[in-house]
Amino acid sequence: MATEAAVDQVGVEAAMERLARDARAAARALGEHGAADKNRALRAAARRIRSSENALLSANAKDLAVVDSARLTDAFVDRLKLTPDRIEAMAAGIEAVAALDDPVGDVMAAWERPNGLRIERVRVPLGVIGIIYESRPNVTADAGALCLKSGNAAILRGGSESYHSSNAIMDCLQAGLEEAGLPRAAIQMVPTTDRAAVGAMLTMADLIDIIVPRGGKSLIERVQRESRIPVIAHLDGNCHVYVERSADPETARSVAFNAKMRRPGICGAAETLLVDRAVARDVLPPILDDLARAGCELRGCDDTRALDGRVVPAGDSDWDTEYLDAIIAVKQVDGLDDAIAHINTHGSHHTDAIVTADEAAAERFLGAVDSAIVLHNASTQFADGGEFGMGAEIGISTGRLHARGPVGVEQLTTFKYVVRGSGQVRP
Amino acid sequence: MATEAAVDQVGVEAAMERLARDARAAARALGEHGAADKNRALRAAARRIRSSENALLSANAKDLAVVDSARLTDAFVDRLKLTPDRIEAMAAGIEAVAALDDPVGDVMAAWERPNGLRIERVRVPLGVIGIIYESRPNVTADAGALCLKSGNAAILRGGSESYHSSNAIMDCLQAGLEEAGLPRAAIQMVPTTDRAAVGAMLTMADLIDIIVPRGGKSLIERVQRESRIPVIAHLDGNCHVYVERSADPETARSVAFNAKMRRPGICGAAETLLVDRAVARDVLPPILDDLARAGCELRGCDDTRALDGRVVPAGDSDWDTEYLDAIIAVKQVDGLDDAIAHINTHGSHHTDAIVTADEAAAERFLGAVDSAIVLHNASTQFADGGEFGMGAEIGISTGRLHARGPVGVEQLTTFKYVVRGSGQVRP
Repeated sequence: MATEAAVDQVGVEAAMERLARDARAAARALGEHGAADKNRALRAAARRIRSSENALLSANAKDLAVVDSARLTDAFVDRLKLTPDRIEAMAAGIEAVAALDDPVGDVMAAWERPNGLRIERVRVPLGVIGIIYESRPNVTADAGALCLKSGNAAILRGGSESYHSSNAIMDCLQAGLEEAGLPRAAIQMVPTTDRAAVGAMLTMADLIDIIVPRGGKSLIERVQRESRIPVIAHLDGNCHVYVERSADPETARSVAFNAKMRRPGICGAAETLLVDRAVARDVLPPILDDLARAGCELRGCDDTRALDGRVVPAGDSDWDTEYLDAIIAVKQVDGLDDAIAHINTHGSHHTDAIVTADEAAAERFLGAVDSAIVLHNASTQFADGGEFGMGAEIGISTGRLHARGPVGVEQLTTFKYVVRGSGQVRP
Repeated sequence: MATEAAVDQVGVEAAMERLARDARAAARALGEHGAADKNRALRAAARRIRSSENALLSANAKDLAVVDSARLTDAFVDRLKLTPDRIEAMAAGIEAVAALDDPVGDVMAAWERPNGLRIERVRVPLGVIGIIYESRPNVTADAGALCLKSGNAAILRGGSESYHSSNAIMDCLQAGLEEAGLPRAAIQMVPTTDRAAVGAMLTMADLIDIIVPRGGKSLIERVQRESRIPVIAHLDGNCHVYVERSADPETARSVAFNAKMRRPGICGAAETLLVDRAVARDVLPPILDDLARAGCELRGCDDTRALDGRVVPAGDSDWDTEYLDAIIAVKQVDGLDDAIAHINTHGSHHTDAIVTADEAAAERFLGAVDSAIVLHNASTQFADGGEFGMGAEIGISTGRLHARGPVGVEQLTTFKYVVRGSGQVRP
């Protein structure tokens, strides 16, 4: 297995290639093991994480000691920090992944041809998954567990500020693999903080099957730009709530408030509120009042500003902005078509909701809005694999290929066609 | 719509952007039309192709008049040539696509959450598909029809030697669109033979959702290297037939012969024959004899050469070569694991078959061989969307993401989650 010492000795590129070859071999070897072995490894890893609380906290203390807290935000340091509660949550998260249905081997479809050939479409792992993320130690556990559950080998590359924490977590994961008789290389950490390692990962198209970046927009844009390997990425969550003219005012009020303010920092949080001009005077004031009282900054079009003095002018860029904060852009629109056009132009194809009592308007919105998730009379904050009943997820894909929306264990698989015959040849 | 005149006036990049914007608008507009309108357009296009036989033949004559037949192979010129039979086959092919089930709007899964949210996973078009192909006029009709059937807008870029033929076919397709009230920009041809147009296509990630290259390896490699847009590609078809020790000799003989010689030039043709050393002396001679009599060149390992004087030595590169010709590489292997390792190392993850009477050996092969299509006791030449019952296909994907194996109308779609609630907010 590639180690820090190996990196020093052979250089980043050669060490990364060694690591990826080990991952490929481990992915093949995983194919010989069933759900029971994978789940045994996951549960052993969870136990190891619980029993390693002290080691994890002291590794984390090393990371925290060197972060330049003057340069970094409180949110950054908070995401990096481990606590006993967070360590327990990681262990419980791994156990929850172990409890999910195993997607590998599922027969997705089966049919027989007139010539007697029996064809099955069978779910199989993707192979080797590279995950590139920021300095959030818990992602090491989440991502490693999801990849293993779906039968894939994982190469993890976390942010350099979380290096010691992530390695301490990795030790627990690999101990779990070993306990279950699975190859340690099924989950590996890139053994260097050298940024060249990321560049090397992104070009090893023969050895890594897919790259999943998790983090801010600049990380994801870099990965999408440089990768020669297919990327499953969650770019932006510029989500909308549209209050149609026939909306029940109370439903509009509670959905709009929840969509924005339940947790303003998650990708499914609403960033823009669209309201039919015809009903804005009646429907909007209580919504704006709720938001303002909760500390949300209101930015709006001129007509909206005329309704509430707390609304500051929205500039052109507001319609395209994912605030991830207690700020909302509010616009009055001229009916359903105008709302759909606004969302398809300015949205990020993530999650968008309509509030309406008119079924026909709802169906038209659900059909015409080109987003991974479209909702009728429900909050955009439901955009989450757990809320969908899909279990833990590695992100919400805003791309259109392979995985769209929540990326859970099923989305980390592909399929093959298995054809059983009795000597058929093609005429 | 972008025209040759527009290209001259504004330059390739601006003309391509105009074309792609028209395609995006057309893709959105297609969403307002159902299966009936799309099928009406396809059937009208087929009628138009039949009634335009003279125009198509004379456009094709223009193309044929300028090809440098000294520089190009007979096969190249043959693929470029239109005949009345081939024109009829194009029209019939479009009608066959019209007759397929419409994939758009299919509810792939539906479930209800404890909070009452009803979630559906609904099939939707990918959006705008760019198809880059060689000088085969019939691909214009096939690809245009498959994209339209699956609700996508298509941007077609055929080889420059087929420019007039492809444009004449495009006229028929667009006449069909118009007759059915669909936007002409739903299927467009790149209005220039300038190679810069391909480069421009491959970078318009905001306007084109997916690129499908169809053609030789160098074209596909260029597209994979340069594209900033996800690519669905069929790279190599280095397919294997493995004769396991318990194989019925007659089944082995007929499957091996058919897999190689039925049509040696298709991607599902076998290129390497693996035979268990334990039974080679009994099983191989009649197989080699059949192949040699049919004009197939035999290249083999030393042990195989010892069985038949017509076998010439296989070099290391033979195991990695897709001949697409009447040549086969033959190797004796030491049982199932050796065969699986050979295929996973040298194969191209396309289509591989085992011949055996041992069910356990078959299941192990079907599970462990990492290919899009794996067969037991059947010819690799069944690797074909039509033979799978999936209807026409745009190729066989050797990639692992989104589409693997035959790429038919269903594989040219994605999905969205449609969530219907009654005012739910997330706790």
